[in-house]
Amino acid sequence: MHDYNLTMMTDYYQLTMMQGHYLRGEHTKTAVFDMFFRKNPETNAYAITCGLDLVIEYIEAIRFSEEDINFLRGMGSFRPEFLEYLRDFRFRGDVHAVPEGTVVFPHEPILRVTAPLIEAQFLETALLNIINHQTLIATKAARICISAEGDEVMEFGLRRAQGPDAGVLGARAAIIGGCAATSNVLAGKMFDIPVRGTHAHSWIMSFESEPEAFRAYAKFYPAQCILLVDTYNTLKSGVPNAITVFKEMRAAGGLTGKYGIRLDSGDLAYLSKAARVMLDEAGFPEAVISASSDLDEWLIKDLKHQGAKITLWGVGTNLITSKDCPSLGGVYKISAMEDAHGGLVSKIKISEDPEKITNPGKKTLFRIYERESGKIKADVIALDGERINEGADLTLFHPVATWKKMVLAAGSFTVKELLVPVFVKGRCVYVSPKVMDIQRHCRSELATLWVEYKRLLRPHIMPVDLSDGLYELKTRLIGEMRGN
Amino acid sequence: MHDYNLTMMTDYYQLTMMQGHYLRGEHTKTAVFDMFFRKNPETNAYAITCGLDLVIEYIEAIRFSEEDINFLRGMGSFRPEFLEYLRDFRFRGDVHAVPEGTVVFPHEPILRVTAPLIEAQFLETALLNIINHQTLIATKAARICISAEGDEVMEFGLRRAQGPDAGVLGARAAIIGGCAATSNVLAGKMFDIPVRGTHAHSWIMSFESEPEAFRAYAKFYPAQCILLVDTYNTLKSGVPNAITVFKEMRAAGGLTGKYGIRLDSGDLAYLSKAARVMLDEAGFPEAVISASSDLDEWLIKDLKHQGAKITLWGVGTNLITSKDCPSLGGVYKISAMEDAHGGLVSKIKISEDPEKITNPGKKTLFRIYERESGKIKADVIALDGERINEGADLTLFHPVATWKKMVLAAGSFTVKELLVPVFVKGRCVYVSPKVMDIQRHCRSELATLWVEYKRLLRPHIMPVDLSDGLYELKTRLIGEMRGN
Repeated sequence: MHDYNLTMMTDYYQLTMMQGHYLRGEHTKTAVFDMFFRKNPETNAYAITCGLDLVIEYIEAIRFSEEDINFLRGMGSFRPEFLEYLRDFRFRGDVHAVPEGTVVFPHEPILRVTAPLIEAQFLETALLNIINHQTLIATKAARICISAEGDEVMEFGLRRAQGPDAGVLGARAAIIGGCAATSNVLAGKMFDIPVRGTHAHSWIMSFESEPEAFRAYAKFYPAQCILLVDTYNTLKSGVPNAITVFKEMRAAGGLTGKYGIRLDSGDLAYLSKAARVMLDEAGFPEAVISASSDLDEWLIKDLKHQGAKITLWGVGTNLITSKDCPSLGGVYKISAMEDAHGGLVSKIKISEDPEKITNPGKKTLFRIYERESGKIKADVIALDGERINEGADLTLFHPVATWKKMVLAAGSFTVKELLVPVFVKGRCVYVSPKVMDIQRHCRSELATLWVEYKRLLRPHIMPVDLSDGLYELKTRLIGEMRGN
Repeated sequence: MHDYNLTMMTDYYQLTMMQGHYLRGEHTKTAVFDMFFRKNPETNAYAITCGLDLVIEYIEAIRFSEEDINFLRGMGSFRPEFLEYLRDFRFRGDVHAVPEGTVVFPHEPILRVTAPLIEAQFLETALLNIINHQTLIATKAARICISAEGDEVMEFGLRRAQGPDAGVLGARAAIIGGCAATSNVLAGKMFDIPVRGTHAHSWIMSFESEPEAFRAYAKFYPAQCILLVDTYNTLKSGVPNAITVFKEMRAAGGLTGKYGIRLDSGDLAYLSKAARVMLDEAGFPEAVISASSDLDEWLIKDLKHQGAKITLWGVGTNLITSKDCPSLGGVYKISAMEDAHGGLVSKIKISEDPEKITNPGKKTLFRIYERESGKIKADVIALDGERINEGADLTLFHPVATWKKMVLAAGSFTVKELLVPVFVKGRCVYVSPKVMDIQRHCRSELATLWVEYKRLLRPHIMPVDLSDGLYELKTRLIGEMRGN
């Protein structure tokens, strides 16, 4: 049923611009585009890249079907020669990208396309759609998992996700950001990620009584017996009935797996503490107390602060929609274009707002780590081909307030280039790691951030500087533009 | 690439509960579930139903493939006889629903499933995912279009949508809610809805100069020539260059279609007024001024209030993600279940919070219109089979504050039942209208609301009352429960 041709998932203006370039005969000229975002989600200091795997799948499958071309013909704006051209349209350029699960910062090129203008232009919409969404959710998941301080977090949001893809791709992104499992069976099957869950209120309500419902569940799922205790009254009915059933299981020698309760409403701090006492006194100190109910990173942090006895967190709506900030404003901007003589000319977009002036030229991205700690000192956006020498002193300066300088002594830092080749001349040269390996990569990436960058509120801002070469180019182009 | 089997798009616990019911031999007992939501999105007084078309497609396609069953077997929790049972699992029950594009209110059953327990339970996750998302976006679109006071609103959000489906299905919902067109080509093709767009900054930047870029665009798209004027400087460069090109077009006899400018940054109130003067003075009073740039219903309302000269609105991120409220909390609750004697027993979920107590029993939904104006007076949730007689006085009362009463005189009102049959014994008996017909239906639905219900802030709250029969049933069941 869901047999989309994502080739057509584009903004109409991409096609009108492409036809324009084609009719002018400019379409084969090489162009360079960067994808970057200007602002982290919410109050965060970083984002976690996600979505490259689907971008690869998308690019490899680009193909206008006969049906697509007929539809476009019917729109009345496209000429026969252009429609004919689309028949063999493929992506034949280069793509470099930061791998999934990597920590990145505003203004950094996280994906760079170098391709014939018409092909580079075409990628824009799908690429932004995919990466904006998944990066947003992976980042939200990282925030939530950091608040949970090592407790397991389950992704439970499918029913509130913005459509099927948001649920399925969002579950993948949540796992990459650090979640232990998802409730989403399809995501589990597609991406080989852990799937978990227990039962709903309707299970309890379909029985004559709560004990009967618990007893039946315990019989069928003794190894993972988490009982939902808030259908009628958590402390007067749910927890006592759960204890009765745990006692029966123990008496029958069946209490060998993971067991416990789930709270899904009410005052989770109070209820979890009261339930902990009841469970402990009844002889079930290993019983897990899990909780769900409109949780997010702030509530989890606050519940921990209050001493809530919860060690397993189910997070739904607020994670899968990134509720406080449901979009990442990633953009895709042209940075260089072949001129009439075959040379690559750097391009800049000017704005009254310095934040909105683009970084011109074909660029790359370096990360500078403190050698001793392995923590990130700064990132440097540089021109493609520039190198940073670990054996020499390195002077970094703020791209706007240039008097803000920092000198790193030779030998005190290490350098890593973050963009890696993904497509070369239209051929994919990159193999996506397994999702659980990307999750491990993400965890090690987060370990390269000092804790001050991981605070929910008012974190440190990572310096993202420009290389000397890029700074000079940008300053010169701004001068030329303003002079015009 | 996008060949999902949505059958597997479910929460894991649905499958564990289904196996439980199956192993107990209770799975074929008839159950009734309602879908409803407790709170309108944002500050709205109503929601616009959307998503039924995909729900139908989903239900008709339910089928566990061999691959799905192998995956489930590998999970280790499912017994061979249950997996064997899933092989022939289909939906064979009844579904009633409120048609798409209809105005609805909190607590109303907008979809009702009457089916063998195991089938009714299974539908929950996918059904909520689909309807929650699309209803949210259709409602947001209605809010935005109402703010635009009859101006055309374009849906432009694909690049910021939460994944491909959110973009494509969101575009459909936006059209249903009142948008004139979308930029999304795939949505246009799939749903036969209007698609529009012009060009991006990259079009301008791929030329040596702005006038060249405008001239080329005008040459290729004379019939729909909306020029983006903010790449360099809106009033000093963009608008004067656009005027130059419009003059050239007029001189060549080519200014016969729709033409104008698009503002995409800066102070839209000031810029639109200044541009209007410049265009008028240059002899182009018909030139359209369109605007985009993080718009939503509040900004559009405010810009209109300031006298902005914009008559065409492009809305992206805030519409496609319903940014201020990115989820609708629709739920799916059991309301009746067959007992051991084959009778249907009403079920209720109790909560300390009166808002969270469910309405028990198999129910239907009536709308009461004032006969003279055709406007909605109230809705009544009733037991299935109850009727409201237009020829007798009708007493309505508040479901909690029961002393709040209203008596409608016989003959002064008309009654309409909102739930219509969609599936009967697993066979679809409903034909979804075309999307543009659903848009027309939605417009006529909005016309049944007094303006006080359509305010963005603090609108009137529609009375949604219970029939005498349902009120008595609910009161009795609460008493029995609290008595326990």
